[in-house]
Amino acid sequence: MADATKLSVGFVGLGIMGEAMARNLLKSGLFSSVTVWNRTLSKCDALVAEGALSAPTPADVVAACDVTFGMLADPEAALAAVFNEGGVLAGISAGKGYVDMSTVDEATSTKIGEAVTAKGGKFVEGPVSGSKKPAIDGQLVIMGAGDKELYELVQPAFAVMGKKSFYLGATGAAARMKLVVNMVMGSMMGAFCEGMALADKSGLEQTALLEILGLGAMANPMFAMKGPGIMQRAYPPAFPLKHQQKDLRLALALGDALNQPLPVAAAANEAYKTAKALGRGDQDFAAVYEATQK
Amino acid sequence: MADATKLSVGFVGLGIMGEAMARNLLKSGLFSSVTVWNRTLSKCDALVAEGALSAPTPADVVAACDVTFGMLADPEAALAAVFNEGGVLAGISAGKGYVDMSTVDEATSTKIGEAVTAKGGKFVEGPVSGSKKPAIDGQLVIMGAGDKELYELVQPAFAVMGKKSFYLGATGAAARMKLVVNMVMGSMMGAFCEGMALADKSGLEQTALLEILGLGAMANPMFAMKGPGIMQRAYPPAFPLKHQQKDLRLALALGDALNQPLPVAAAANEAYKTAKALGRGDQDFAAVYEATQK
Amino acid sequence: MADATKLSVGFVGLGIMGEAMARNLLKSGLFSSVTVWNRTLSKCDALVAEGALSAPTPADVVAACDVTFGMLADPEAALAAVFNEGGVLAGISAGKGYVDMSTVDEATSTKIGEAVTAKGGKFVEGPVSGSKKPAIDGQLVIMGAGDKELYELVQPAFAVMGKKSFYLGATGAAARMKLVVNMVMGSMMGAFCEGMALADKSGLEQTALLEILGLGAMANPMFAMKGPGIMQRAYPPAFPLKHQQKDLRLALALGDALNQPLPVAAAANEAYKTAKALGRGDQDFAAVYEATQK
Amino acid sequence: MADATKLSVGFVGLGIMGEAMARNLLKSGLFSSVTVWNRTLSKCDALVAEGALSAPTPADVVAACDVTFGMLADPEAALAAVFNEGGVLAGISAGKGYVDMSTVDEATSTKIGEAVTAKGGKFVEGPVSGSKKPAIDGQLVIMGAGDKELYELVQPAFAVMGKKSFYLGATGAAARMKLVVNMVMGSMMGAFCEGMALADKSGLEQTALLEILGLGAMANPMFAMKGPGIMQRAYPPAFPLKHQQKDLRLALALGDALNQPLPVAAAANEAYKTAKALGRGDQDFAAVYEATQK
Repeated sequence: MADATKLSVGFVGLGIMGEAMARNLLKSGLFSSVTVWNRTLSKCDALVAEGALSAPTPADVVAACDVTFGMLADPEAALAAVFNEGGVLAGISAGKGYVDMSTVDEATSTKIGEAVTAKGGKFVEGPVSGSKKPAIDGQLVIMGAGDKELYELVQPAFAVMGKKSFYLGATGAAARMKLVVNMVMGSMMGAFCEGMALADKSGLEQTALLEILGLGAMANPMFAMKGPGIMQRAYPPAFPLKHQQKDLRLALALGDALNQPLPVAAAANEAYKTAKALGRGDQDFAAVYEATQK
Repeated sequence: MADATKLSVGFVGLGIMGEAMARNLLKSGLFSSVTVWNRTLSKCDALVAEGALSAPTPADVVAACDVTFGMLADPEAALAAVFNEGGVLAGISAGKGYVDMSTVDEATSTKIGEAVTAKGGKFVEGPVSGSKKPAIDGQLVIMGAGDKELYELVQPAFAVMGKKSFYLGATGAAARMKLVVNMVMGSMMGAFCEGMALADKSGLEQTALLEILGLGAMANPMFAMKGPGIMQRAYPPAFPLKHQQKDLRLALALGDALNQPLPVAAAANEAYKTAKALGRGDQDFAAVYEATQK
Repeated sequence: MADATKLSVGFVGLGIMGEAMARNLLKSGLFSSVTVWNRTLSKCDALVAEGALSAPTPADVVAACDVTFGMLADPEAALAAVFNEGGVLAGISAGKGYVDMSTVDEATSTKIGEAVTAKGGKFVEGPVSGSKKPAIDGQLVIMGAGDKELYELVQPAFAVMGKKSFYLGATGAAARMKLVVNMVMGSMMGAFCEGMALADKSGLEQTALLEILGLGAMANPMFAMKGPGIMQRAYPPAFPLKHQQKDLRLALALGDALNQPLPVAAAANEAYKTAKALGRGDQDFAAVYEATQK
Repeated sequence: MADATKLSVGFVGLGIMGEAMARNLLKSGLFSSVTVWNRTLSKCDALVAEGALSAPTPADVVAACDVTFGMLADPEAALAAVFNEGGVLAGISAGKGYVDMSTVDEATSTKIGEAVTAKGGKFVEGPVSGSKKPAIDGQLVIMGAGDKELYELVQPAFAVMGKKSFYLGATGAAARMKLVVNMVMGSMMGAFCEGMALADKSGLEQTALLEILGLGAMANPMFAMKGPGIMQRAYPPAFPLKHQQKDLRLALALGDALNQPLPVAAAANEAYKTAKALGRGDQDFAAVYEATQK
């Protein structure tokens, strides 16, 4: 694996975020080549027009590059891109690296990592926090885990795609970190919605609560973003409630396996389950507010 | 009550915050006079040296001023300053106003408001969020309730002491808002501590979690301020845990009276009770982290 | 106070339970006389026809008897029977005893006990568990607290009214025991309703669950009595849900004062609050089942 | 499958309960023969001396009998007895039945049922509630599910082994019922332990609480059996706490899959997790009391 000269990099999965991330790699001029692939191949055209190469399969991308990044929609797509015919695994060999930046569970990540390693490749998991806008702006936060050497090698790429990256430990650590972060997020939103509900029930303006929270030590972008929607009881999905509830469930299971009691998260989880039972599973997770309303 | 000419204002209670607030009123030059009183009278000396007048009792302050502000340590002190011999009530009369900025419960505030009103005075409750530094900097957030006319009249004073004030409704509304805000704070800290505990138990660095939270949509000053102490399990009291637990209890009682279920806050409250049972009541409320440790 | 010869006893409050309890005292033949009073005096007629005496005020009952029992509807009625003009307090004097068997809170009981004691009388609180049928059958369970000597003296009367009595300590202990018992009851009913709900949701017959529970180590009269009503979602009030919720709230407050975390009861309390919010407060406490249904 | 003439029955698994159950089948005289097998074959000797036949493998038992009952220690043993070489599956054929009375999860039961059915056999799952003594006395409670015809056919055998059997639906229903029952049990024990803790903290004798509960509508064998151990904080394992916690977890997961909020069970589960974290996992589930003690 080269590190004195310019790396050749690949990118597999050109969804909303993947395309933006690949474009940032391309625009940086730091890499000898950027080779892309997408299941719908026409999605490669724009990047090719900007100077990227394209390849007919993930295996071809991996074969052509020192390091390949993946950004797939979900665990199923992440597994398919690796294990299907013409997948990453068919191209991997000693000296090559694969960095999966998809959000997947620890088991999926571990399975991919073991398969890559078994063929002599190096593997890093690198899920991100942040969505479309930070992806375009190269302002993602990257949680990295797995092969430390590969993690170090791709620092220039991470620096182009994100504002900060973290090395968290062996494969699986980044998936766990994402669960912990999302558990805090779920409980925090549950706490916020109870405050909004109690304000309303006790004759206070919710908008005043929002402003006051926004001026104090608890001020955070999430309350500011989600508060107005809650007031209108409109929840266009950014992060679907059913996914938030799934992450709470998985975090509770992790706590269970580690003998870590998590009573606040457990209570919040039941609130999300109530909201799901009310038919809000596909709405934004702020719809947990509905669980406070009878 | 004058509003075309300059108001004469009084200030009762020169603790850490009160002194800073009175000094800001004095320095503004907006008022014809600033008359101060404190239980330990020598605490008036510095402000007198800077141009304030002093008076021997709260009654004398009120008698001398258009509007008097109070900033007492707790409900008992707030009641004593009003109802004791030589208290606010002995000086109040038609045309005068009293603005109690102490943090007290709704019953205490209502009792003071009714007494002031019965003697022809006007009453505003105005608890603040923010502590010593914002008081000095005139950056408090002021939650106002009670007599709307008096609230409007003292806007210039609020503008000097705070960065923002809110009018929330009839007397009691500001006390309730403070409860709602502190309930959200208590649950949010409970959520954060569970995340810190799960990170640690699952082999992740707590410092990485702190950084990641600090870069995302949940980023807030409270996590940033309290996180390092939690990591060292040191909790020098800024807001004592037993007071946070009391506010959760009162918020739950408010929810109870209004038929508003609050399961996340109820679970958080039990965590604070556990921390109290562990002897952490006088430490900072971040010590609820100890409830997650066995 | 006589204990070698027969006692003269009084009974204040002839509601459904009080009348049955007084009749059992009368029928026993153990007492030299039984003198009764009720706010609606005509309620005394039946017992007078059976051999009781009646008196125009509680004070007259107390004046005429060695020991007087009270069985009033609620704390307000219990206080009125003691403190109103012509109340128990007006008749009490050294050597006389008052045994209040009403269900009241610890503060009410303590207030009555202190007043009786201040006039030289002896006081026992003796709330019961059991309702109409056990009252008629002399099968109540009596929780006693307060003056030990008086408690011993009235053993024959307790033996006639109840199947068992307990001496629990100083005044207030019986009120606390009743709270503890009702807290267990509230949580246990919450647990049962969740089981009934999960059975139904997972395609199992609720009637089968009832039968299976009834044949095992958890078998208890409450599940057997309340189960069929839950299946029909009909909750004629035996113990109103709002009272059960109030007792949970008071038990949680007791735990709070004693630093005793009670997370299961706290979760159950929120379920009862949800049921109240759904308009079920005046129905039987088994209506907490409704909180499990969306 | 014969039903006009006497059935020949087999029994696989002669542990403490299995041996007693097989003996009851033998003693009843209702069956043309009783053929037994155990992994340690010498465990068959006593029953053979009493008139049973023995066989060298489960496959031989099944081949020799109309219906074979299984009573294995856990899911692994249950699967081994069926799928291992010489297992139940090797002997099954059209017209034969297998009744698995082991306590296993729904997935295990379904897997066994599908394999038996695929070879033309009939399958019933029949987990029991009750332990050694009821097994000896033929007083088990049998939860049946699966093939209705086979369930009806074995009614005489169920009547000999148990005091009551229930047909609950398709394979899996009995496993779910057992989860629901154990969820109620776990929450109920959690509620009981909180009551015991609050009694103690508030200066009441726990023994008085036990007696009072034992005389009222909540009276049940479990409180009576477990109470004295809790008072001594001694928890010799009858049903290990870690198994109770696992069942709560599985019940919560079932509720999750069905959108059934279960906040009381969720809070109880966290208490069991706390007790596990305190090192009580292998003690009796009554050790959840330790989670209430700091």
